[in-house]
Amino acid sequence: MQNYRALIQYDGTRYSGWQKQGNTTATIQGRLEQAISGLLKEPVELHGSGRTDAGVHAVGQVANFKTAKSMDLPRFVHQLNEALPDDIAVLELTPAEPRFHARLNAKEKVYRYTIRNSHCADVFRRRFEYKLPEPLDLEKMQQAAEVLTGTHDFRGFSTGRTKKSTVRTIFSIQIDKTGGRIDITFTGDGFLYNMVRILTGTLIEIGIGTREIHSIQDVFDTKDRTRAGFTAPAQGLCLMEVRY
Amino acid sequence: MQNYRALIQYDGTRYSGWQKQGNTTATIQGRLEQAISGLLKEPVELHGSGRTDAGVHAVGQVANFKTAKSMDLPRFVHQLNEALPDDIAVLELTPAEPRFHARLNAKEKVYRYTIRNSHCADVFRRRFEYKLPEPLDLEKMQQAAEVLTGTHDFRGFSTGRTKKSTVRTIFSIQIDKTGGRIDITFTGDGFLYNMVRILTGTLIEIGIGTREIHSIQDVFDTKDRTRAGFTAPAQGLCLMEVRY
Repeated sequence: MQNYRALIQYDGTRYSGWQKQGNTTATIQGRLEQAISGLLKEPVELHGSGRTDAGVHAVGQVANFKTAKSMDLPRFVHQLNEALPDDIAVLELTPAEPRFHARLNAKEKVYRYTIRNSHCADVFRRRFEYKLPEPLDLEKMQQAAEVLTGTHDFRGFSTGRTKKSTVRTIFSIQIDKTGGRIDITFTGDGFLYNMVRILTGTLIEIGIGTREIHSIQDVFDTKDRTRAGFTAPAQGLCLMEVRY
Repeated sequence: MQNYRALIQYDGTRYSGWQKQGNTTATIQGRLEQAISGLLKEPVELHGSGRTDAGVHAVGQVANFKTAKSMDLPRFVHQLNEALPDDIAVLELTPAEPRFHARLNAKEKVYRYTIRNSHCADVFRRRFEYKLPEPLDLEKMQQAAEVLTGTHDFRGFSTGRTKKSTVRTIFSIQIDKTGGRIDITFTGDGFLYNMVRILTGTLIEIGIGTREIHSIQDVFDTKDRTRAGFTAPAQGLCLMEVRY
């Protein structure tokens, strides 16, 4: 069996997220497995670096799969993109070490949350931005981002229950403003369920002025989800890169 | 009556073009007139700088309309954008001279045609680009662009019949490559029906190598549409700016 690593992009608008569910055509993983299995004429299991939620996009999702079938890689990528719907694309497909696993070997992930800070959505980017007309104090948000950065138990900044560790390390949170667009770029060793969206909601509330920076420490201490900010809408979120 | 000038953006994917037809909801003009008339509670006629075809986009369409009703402009723009579908936006609305007419007073127009020169569409830009996998000789295309620039009878580079003059002046055609994306920017005093798309199709054929540069002169001389290139698909075309 040869192991393959795929670099994948998608516009998540139409999908119920990455992870395969009953109805395979409604998920990115389902669509990809269907296309790959169809071309190889054998069932293939695709392992993504992690789930993305319904409506979340990816510029650089990574996944791996194994097959004993031989293939002409450039030709296979071409056929795969022909078989895939036009909102999912495989950019690269490369042979990988037998032990490479897209999720287990991921060292760093980069997510970007994009806000259109205007009364008016950008008609060309509207599927990939969250429109928020309220003025934002970016300096305060940057200060709050520094409090969030580092190794913390982020349980209060996530939803869903887990018995596993909820300690994660955020290496950086960068806030960039270009015209009416604000990008918040999160780099970390991993993110819990809904974590980037709740961190973004918390930063937004601090930027609007309805929340104080010291509330972050309170969420760290109490691990209480209800004390953190709102969950920012999925459409503004994009998985930018997975590093190994 | 006060005259107003509007700066308008739209993603043309879902529409049968700018110009109002029987079914008003399927055109940009129809949607805008409906929204403006609804808010003003009186029928309003909107004059665009020109038609854009079905599927063509605009970053900077200009239109004007007259009304005797008084309005708070920022509030009206806000209400208008709330009333419009999210793929049409009014960016600015300003009082204009009584004699200002968006079409009759237009001095220059800028159109951009975008090609994704790759086997794989960009999933985020796919509605605004024409995917073309064949390698293009940009130097040859730039040479051809220079032949097209200037004042010529462009009848052979348009469809539809007209008794009016088909002489137009193209001030510049700029070709820019950024990664896998090629933008061809046309600036001229006006463009005939389908002209930008046929010029683009002609440039593409020259870039691929299936057409020689001297064929352009032949189309100028014969005014024969069948001797020019194919009509590049609408989705790659965008009206960038109208100058007065």
